[in-house]
Amino acid sequence: MNPFLKEHIQEIANLTDNDFEIIQSFFVKKRFRKRQFLIQEHQSVYEIFLIEKGILKSSFIDHTGKEHILQFATANWWISDFAGFFKQETSSLAVDCIEDAEVHALSFEDLNILCSKVPVMEHFFRVKSNFGYVALQQRILSLMSKSAKERYEDFIKQYPGFIDHIPKQLIASYLGVSRETLSRLYL
Amino acid sequence: MNPFLKEHIQEIANLTDNDFEIIQSFFVKKRFRKRQFLIQEHQSVYEIFLIEKGILKSSFIDHTGKEHILQFATANWWISDFAGFFKQETSSLAVDCIEDAEVHALSFEDLNILCSKVPVMEHFFRVKSNFGYVALQQRILSLMSKSAKERYEDFIKQYPGFIDHIPKQLIASYLGVSRETLSRLYL
Repeated sequence: MNPFLKEHIQEIANLTDNDFEIIQSFFVKKRFRKRQFLIQEHQSVYEIFLIEKGILKSSFIDHTGKEHILQFATANWWISDFAGFFKQETSSLAVDCIEDAEVHALSFEDLNILCSKVPVMEHFFRVKSNFGYVALQQRILSLMSKSAKERYEDFIKQYPGFIDHIPKQLIASYLGVSRETLSRLYL
Repeated sequence: MNPFLKEHIQEIANLTDNDFEIIQSFFVKKRFRKRQFLIQEHQSVYEIFLIEKGILKSSFIDHTGKEHILQFATANWWISDFAGFFKQETSSLAVDCIEDAEVHALSFEDLNILCSKVPVMEHFFRVKSNFGYVALQQRILSLMSKSAKERYEDFIKQYPGFIDHIPKQLIASYLGVSRETLSRLYL
């Protein structure tokens, strides 16, 4: 029995013990080291990952070689290249570890089988996806309309406690500002 | 029987006639005029809207009074302030009509009842939400990493045929460029 997985799902969906027996049989626990990649660019995207421990990021390298960070994620967050995963296309993002991580992986095929076998999981993933959508909407509005200082303040609110665990260069890349601009905001 | 609604849902979910009888009883058809608001800022968000006809936009006014356009939408797209709707908070966006529109409205309470009564609708909305998430992810990467010219080219791909129906000022606002910059790209 995996108490982390059960608690995570039960925040949204009521589970019977029988439901949970089935659910946990679909997840595969995996460990990754700091700097190890879960997904590399231009490859098939087989899985989504629920994080139990560690800090990860998803990022995009543009044609000039510059890294743009789409998302940081820690315990109880899901991470993947969702575009590649849901459309079953090759990845445009990379996902790697900022710290050692333990995750629960679920494949595309298993996600669909699980949702049809255990309907409460269809509900779980609908609600999760809705909240993920909302978070991205906020990020777009932030990128379009806010100053670097306001985006930094949003970051601290959205990722409390991350500020001491993530290298400043990566935070600057997430915010879309230079390392120097971030230093001025940070002091 | 509403063939538009049935066809729209059947692109993702297999429906029996009985399913569809129930489904359509939850939707309310509404008509709006050009420039009319479906959602205004700082108000409760009661509904999501599936568009049958017309062109709509969702937008955000920043504290300087500048409008930032999050989304354009036409037939077969869904629009709302999804953050306000899913979190049942007041809206930060406005949704209004660029052209006269016919939409099918679904309330928050009815969405949840419908998903529990007709499980295939839970599947439908999960898949819709996943694709909506993917579209927003692309928009973030575009805002972070692309030039105005590349964003304009993406816009034409994502909204084919819109270019002649949407005032240039609004396209500039969607792309995050000035009207003058857009003119240079457009010619």
